[in-house]
Amino acid sequence: MSALPAEEHTPGSLLLGEIREQPAALERLLEHSDEYAAVAAVARERGLNLVRMVGHGSSDNAASYGVYAFGLLPRWTALRDSISLSVYYGAEIDLKGSCIIALSQSGETPDVLAYVERARARGALTIAITNDPRSALGEAAELVLPLAAGVERSIAATKTYTTQVAALALLAGHAAGQGQLIGEGIRAVAAQLDDALPALERRLAEIALALAFVGRMFVIGRGPEFATAREISLKLLETCRVAAEPLTATDLIHGPLAALDGMFPVWTIGSDDESLPAVREAAARARAAGATLVASGPAAREIANAGFYAAVPTPTVTLLSPLLSVVPGQLLAWALAQAKGLDPDRPNGLSKITHAL
Amino acid sequence: MSALPAEEHTPGSLLLGEIREQPAALERLLEHSDEYAAVAAVARERGLNLVRMVGHGSSDNAASYGVYAFGLLPRWTALRDSISLSVYYGAEIDLKGSCIIALSQSGETPDVLAYVERARARGALTIAITNDPRSALGEAAELVLPLAAGVERSIAATKTYTTQVAALALLAGHAAGQGQLIGEGIRAVAAQLDDALPALERRLAEIALALAFVGRMFVIGRGPEFATAREISLKLLETCRVAAEPLTATDLIHGPLAALDGMFPVWTIGSDDESLPAVREAAARARAAGATLVASGPAAREIANAGFYAAVPTPTVTLLSPLLSVVPGQLLAWALAQAKGLDPDRPNGLSKITHAL
Repeated sequence: MSALPAEEHTPGSLLLGEIREQPAALERLLEHSDEYAAVAAVARERGLNLVRMVGHGSSDNAASYGVYAFGLLPRWTALRDSISLSVYYGAEIDLKGSCIIALSQSGETPDVLAYVERARARGALTIAITNDPRSALGEAAELVLPLAAGVERSIAATKTYTTQVAALALLAGHAAGQGQLIGEGIRAVAAQLDDALPALERRLAEIALALAFVGRMFVIGRGPEFATAREISLKLLETCRVAAEPLTATDLIHGPLAALDGMFPVWTIGSDDESLPAVREAAARARAAGATLVASGPAAREIANAGFYAAVPTPTVTLLSPLLSVVPGQLLAWALAQAKGLDPDRPNGLSKITHAL
Repeated sequence: MSALPAEEHTPGSLLLGEIREQPAALERLLEHSDEYAAVAAVARERGLNLVRMVGHGSSDNAASYGVYAFGLLPRWTALRDSISLSVYYGAEIDLKGSCIIALSQSGETPDVLAYVERARARGALTIAITNDPRSALGEAAELVLPLAAGVERSIAATKTYTTQVAALALLAGHAAGQGQLIGEGIRAVAAQLDDALPALERRLAEIALALAFVGRMFVIGRGPEFATAREISLKLLETCRVAAEPLTATDLIHGPLAALDGMFPVWTIGSDDESLPAVREAAARARAAGATLVASGPAAREIANAGFYAAVPTPTVTLLSPLLSVVPGQLLAWALAQAKGLDPDRPNGLSKITHAL
């Protein structure tokens, strides 16, 4: 299953190496900004304003961000489409006016490929965003955009998730005539992240020791940061065996709040946008229910009474904050796995390309 | 918070009473079938084929079912829209061609109301489906449809969830010119459920004793049954403090599989449709990772090597299977809360109407 030579592997070294590589990966993506602009121009020329995103795992988490990037920049409706509805149930939905964005690191995910083939045959504009433009998905889609994240060796995705988020922001930015602004914002984030990483690594190693006994956790984010909450939860599930569940601030008070007690930490993501009051209040209610709070995100300090703080820099473009906010969660997954005696580079039962069920 | 007179309350009696009332509630909904037909006719006349559903908690879970009901019956695209994108972030998305379906038991959920007011002002067809047509939401929407579930006293929703699912099926059925078929299917389900309830109550009480020590669980469903997986997870979170996470069969193998071990039961929902092979395979992989399986749904017996079986009857219309599949999960929540010494009628910190954060 693994290409790792057992004798020289340091547990977590692949994961940490790719977390550290993220600023460079974002820079590489930006070298392709003109290609993103050209694809956005095609979608605009065809008058498309309904974006259907498909992908699994981290790719689907990035698509949660796309809902906000397309909604707030070109004001398009973007949805995470159901693959099973068309591929397994054969629903013949009208795809006129639709633009498909297929997200797959490998470009070999079978049901994403089947979805794109069907949609292209039915007249939709199909766009693949993949780390391997020469993959089957790259061949199947009408237009292909590279992630340019570099070869991914870690089973838990990190740099391919952040480049997917940046790719969706860049495409949405170009669709709105603001591609340059978004590109400059991504470049600034890459520099901020490069500066912040050493201190974040130390901080998350400390926090991980304190969370070594945790078996379940809620991760709270709202708006564009809901994608971050989903991605951090997935990292903790797959590398640390923590039952981490992503919730919006509003989800929390519609039931899950009742599950909280002192054994149930809550990771909160505070961003300097319209979602902050809701996240602050959800955090306060979780704390009142006995939960230990971990406050993260650019506005971590706005979360009152947290046991632990892991703030990230404030981006120049607020919508890009998820590129920074996810990193403490990635580092927690790396450090917590080691605190629990697990190797995050060898999660149980997972392989690099996921085949369809 | 509670209207319960403490001296005479039997823990869980409100919840169990409303679980048992579901067949009657479904029958009451069907008395309004003509109103559903009339609303569907308006949407068809206006040429709408993009359905935006909004709601929180159980209402949002019902909306997950709506994606399939509208996709498979009138072949419309239905999406769970982001309330925060328009209400908090103020995104000005084009709503021409959109039909809004707002789901709220009380009709008083503030941000659902704000969403509907904005959408109506911007020219969308707005439809409220609520248990109280004279509520603020009933006033705000252009068209109102009753759930007719009867007064809901339990904090954990059960009969209002199943009537919401049935209401979406009925509306989608009428939109596709198949309203009579779906109405008859719902009537048949109500009779099957009425027959099956006594044995299911006994069976789930036995299973609950065996699961009394569980702190976390995955709930696996696919296609229309993903709504069931979400709703069962929410019931377990809010009444039993179990960190239950809903996953599709494909989600499971994109990471969460690595978290499984013998301490982590997996509840699987087997339905006789195109999703069954994926659910069977996901169950097999979970079992191989050491998880104890609970097999439920009409096709429970197709799930191999489960530790526990809780099958439900096979509906005459396969798409209506979620109306039956959710009931063992509701009964598990009722019975497991008692096995853990909790009163499911008094979950920590929850109240009947959830106010916006």
